[in-house]
Amino acid sequence: MDGGLTSNADLAPDHCQPFGQLFMTKTKVGHFMLDRIKEAGVDLTFGIPGDYVLPVYAAQERCGFKTVVMTHEPSVGFAADAYARIKGLGVALVTYGAGGLNIINSVALAYAEESPLLVISGSPDTKFRSQKAELHHCVKSFESQLKVMAEVTESHALITNPKTACEEIDRVITTTRKRSRPGYLELPRDILNIEVEIPSRIPGAVGGEPRGLSEAIAEIEARLGTAKQPVLLAGAQIHRFKTIDKVVGLVNNLNIPVVTSILGKTAFPESHPNFIGSYFGKFGDPKVREYVESCDLILCLGAVLTEMETGGYSASLPQDKLILANSHELTIGQHSYPYIDFVMLLDKLLKSTTSGALKGKKFAVPSLPAEKFDLEPNQKALSVGAMMDTLNKMLDERYRVVTDLGDCLYAGMGLKTDQFIAPGNYSSMGFGVPAGIGAQLADPKRRSLILAGDGGFQMTGNELTTAAKLGINPIVVLFDNASYAMMRFIDQKKDYYELNRWDYVGVAKALGATGVKVTTKHEFQEALKSAESCTGPMLIDCIISETDISPTLKRLTDHFGQKLRATAN
Amino acid sequence: MDGGLTSNADLAPDHCQPFGQLFMTKTKVGHFMLDRIKEAGVDLTFGIPGDYVLPVYAAQERCGFKTVVMTHEPSVGFAADAYARIKGLGVALVTYGAGGLNIINSVALAYAEESPLLVISGSPDTKFRSQKAELHHCVKSFESQLKVMAEVTESHALITNPKTACEEIDRVITTTRKRSRPGYLELPRDILNIEVEIPSRIPGAVGGEPRGLSEAIAEIEARLGTAKQPVLLAGAQIHRFKTIDKVVGLVNNLNIPVVTSILGKTAFPESHPNFIGSYFGKFGDPKVREYVESCDLILCLGAVLTEMETGGYSASLPQDKLILANSHELTIGQHSYPYIDFVMLLDKLLKSTTSGALKGKKFAVPSLPAEKFDLEPNQKALSVGAMMDTLNKMLDERYRVVTDLGDCLYAGMGLKTDQFIAPGNYSSMGFGVPAGIGAQLADPKRRSLILAGDGGFQMTGNELTTAAKLGINPIVVLFDNASYAMMRFIDQKKDYYELNRWDYVGVAKALGATGVKVTTKHEFQEALKSAESCTGPMLIDCIISETDISPTLKRLTDHFGQKLRATAN
Repeated sequence: MDGGLTSNADLAPDHCQPFGQLFMTKTKVGHFMLDRIKEAGVDLTFGIPGDYVLPVYAAQERCGFKTVVMTHEPSVGFAADAYARIKGLGVALVTYGAGGLNIINSVALAYAEESPLLVISGSPDTKFRSQKAELHHCVKSFESQLKVMAEVTESHALITNPKTACEEIDRVITTTRKRSRPGYLELPRDILNIEVEIPSRIPGAVGGEPRGLSEAIAEIEARLGTAKQPVLLAGAQIHRFKTIDKVVGLVNNLNIPVVTSILGKTAFPESHPNFIGSYFGKFGDPKVREYVESCDLILCLGAVLTEMETGGYSASLPQDKLILANSHELTIGQHSYPYIDFVMLLDKLLKSTTSGALKGKKFAVPSLPAEKFDLEPNQKALSVGAMMDTLNKMLDERYRVVTDLGDCLYAGMGLKTDQFIAPGNYSSMGFGVPAGIGAQLADPKRRSLILAGDGGFQMTGNELTTAAKLGINPIVVLFDNASYAMMRFIDQKKDYYELNRWDYVGVAKALGATGVKVTTKHEFQEALKSAESCTGPMLIDCIISETDISPTLKRLTDHFGQKLRATAN
Repeated sequence: MDGGLTSNADLAPDHCQPFGQLFMTKTKVGHFMLDRIKEAGVDLTFGIPGDYVLPVYAAQERCGFKTVVMTHEPSVGFAADAYARIKGLGVALVTYGAGGLNIINSVALAYAEESPLLVISGSPDTKFRSQKAELHHCVKSFESQLKVMAEVTESHALITNPKTACEEIDRVITTTRKRSRPGYLELPRDILNIEVEIPSRIPGAVGGEPRGLSEAIAEIEARLGTAKQPVLLAGAQIHRFKTIDKVVGLVNNLNIPVVTSILGKTAFPESHPNFIGSYFGKFGDPKVREYVESCDLILCLGAVLTEMETGGYSASLPQDKLILANSHELTIGQHSYPYIDFVMLLDKLLKSTTSGALKGKKFAVPSLPAEKFDLEPNQKALSVGAMMDTLNKMLDERYRVVTDLGDCLYAGMGLKTDQFIAPGNYSSMGFGVPAGIGAQLADPKRRSLILAGDGGFQMTGNELTTAAKLGINPIVVLFDNASYAMMRFIDQKKDYYELNRWDYVGVAKALGATGVKVTTKHEFQEALKSAESCTGPMLIDCIISETDISPTLKRLTDHFGQKLRATAN
């Protein structure tokens, strides 16, 4: 999966700097790896120590890194993923087996959602590897964990040969960043401290313009040139590949209206006047849907049109009207181009609007008021709508929104924010609290407002203890309806969708956080007010009716319910 | 990994009964699978629902099964594993991706520890499988999860063809039980309700006596015939393959002394007069070690001599003195026999002691007082020794001991009990609380006394809520030293081994359990007394000094610490 790159534009500048001092041509394998990670802008790692990985912990300490120790490996993965989405690389340090195999689901999520998460695992010493894999934390063979990781990562390497160690480490770190997808490095315990020569940097091959780029640009120019009502559908890769500025420039020049996909929410700033809403097929705001589907050209940048990105394939994006450009493909109408670097394409397109064929071209932006949540006038009761309405009045540049899976995500799509992190494509529960912590550590200027369902919170909500230990102050807004509500709405009321209702305030306090339970809109408002001055983590336990879900979740569960019944006869 | 079985002795009798009524020759795929599971004696399953697996939940409901819904998939796996160790089969029902990939570590543990855990996962409909794997919960391809599971299971099947569905389901369930190792069944959502013919039962091929069995028995008879001081080292397979009665019969006839391995603890009843202790190489009781290593013959039955089973390979079991019989091999001295069924071998050996060459042969049993924990006379302070001493006075047939990883396991080896369940080989944290729940559901006659460290409890201790929901009353004895103590002793004091000290009593109460914090031996005794009448789950938070560890853990961490330092220079 690593081969075939034709681009040289995607190495960040720091990759081309010599590192360390010139006379230092030797280093240890572990130090080489950690120096490379530091160069990439990473300032802390996430993990749980264990004996096979201790030499990495010791080495990172010597390199000035700290590891944020979480309580459970699934959380380690989610926190490092969120950190990676913001910083461009996030690192999880886990032990073999009990650690590495306990983080697989989090790595799978990062793969599906294109997050540059690097997992580093220690493993049994190379000298044991000719024997049977009968050590602790081992399964079938010494290669088992590598094979498992191969299924959920873009690149991976087992470092057993000091001669190739640096190149292999470089390859995986570079691929993780370039492809914005997980990488895996496995280092047997006895390889870390072996001294190696630092390889000289090989500058990226200076390639010419990719084959087809000019033709593709000309075609896009022609299509935009004749379009009457185009729309730009912005996906997560715009953010992943750090191209927001280019896209904003393009939008400013063309005055084209912008919608975002679910995973792409905030890949384009929602405070920008051209932003008109989230497009989520028939699950999303009907007015946005109607507008997008009446357009004569959809310029889809940085989105992969997966099931969730298209509202369960309910999105109507006819191929004839579609220009689909992302890091995997460039398809215009019915034909595709060979691999064209996504960032290079954006550069060319931006140039076309400043000094090329599209210079001066201007479209019109419709006025689409955001979908309102159902609210009675002067409503006193707490409801999902009342919560979102209240939050929308509070949200500004001091906050980011991080969600778990459930109505916390689908209702959360109605929040107006410029930083939104959610498991919108892979859809795993348990993401919210650890991801909120990882995000706040990556960018402490914003406080994480974490929306979590009770099901997801019961999986990983204990990480409030980690926030307390670190002295950071995320706010958790808990959708407490004592059930896997999404499942209940897809199917019907069943005992296996019921959750024990914890005393969440008691849990929060026992973990060193502040907790408050609210049952009315006023209490919710007051709780948020008191959260403002809270210097540690805070949980707001919002008791909501089991029949209360957002319009988006209602449309989504109706759709998936139909699908389930169709296949389950 | 499924092929090559030559034995026909290992199908339980229920496998040979026709099931259902004779006129019922058709059924649905899902019902067939669940009927087969029911026949194996399983009366409940463990899981977390999700849309891809809902048809299995619906089908099992119609078949009269209940699923115990836990809070997180790692716990689902541990609970079903413990249930499997007692019942001979345990079932986890998980959804695709977010479920199936979040249970991998638990399945790996069951593989390494030879537990017959069956994982059933739903997955995307067969009709989607010709497309790209871009649905929610998907990673690289529709086969990714199957490939991952292949690395941690003995047998696996993706059921896509109704014509072979029943045979494939049968193969995996049978292999899981016969090999006592995990199996994996993946059922796309649209396959469950397809009607299929029930295949006629193929009785196990009637094989003759396995090649080599007579020669092997004669050789074992000769070795035992001339032995002066033999010992029987009993491993976990004696329990896994339900052969305790055979081994007890053999021991009674020969009056041979018995030791157990760490994973084999209670595979031979500790109340039996011939039981002389646990043998754990240089980590274990020095008197047991000295005795075993002075024997002239070690009859090792049902143990696989892995790193942990041999005390980090410190056990001195010279090949010349060793008869090693388990389900994978029969090795006598320096030579091995071709595959000989372990159960059949035990049968023959038992027969030899009742009416064959070994009839009347009698050995002597030494008197070895159990290793004492360090205790001051009239000690008032709480210590690991004081806890174990107190527990040993309480333990009887009303209790089983289940442990997590850490000193809770290694100190726990000093407890005298007839049912002990622990992650002694694979060594993953988080096992204790969910496994204690699974065990108590499998055999409600015994109450689970769960020993957990604070590190493991922070991973899965929330499952107290599941015990509360079910109205069962395990007791959790928490070793609260605010650190990953085992790591600290292997390495040195480091900030990354420190744990936030939770208000565990507060957590227990918030989850619906009873909690009490103890700091003296007397308080611990009183807490245990009050636990006797407790009808729900109870947690005893035992504050212990960070320098207080059991003699076994001290010896173990000294050994692994040396190993770590040797490889980390």
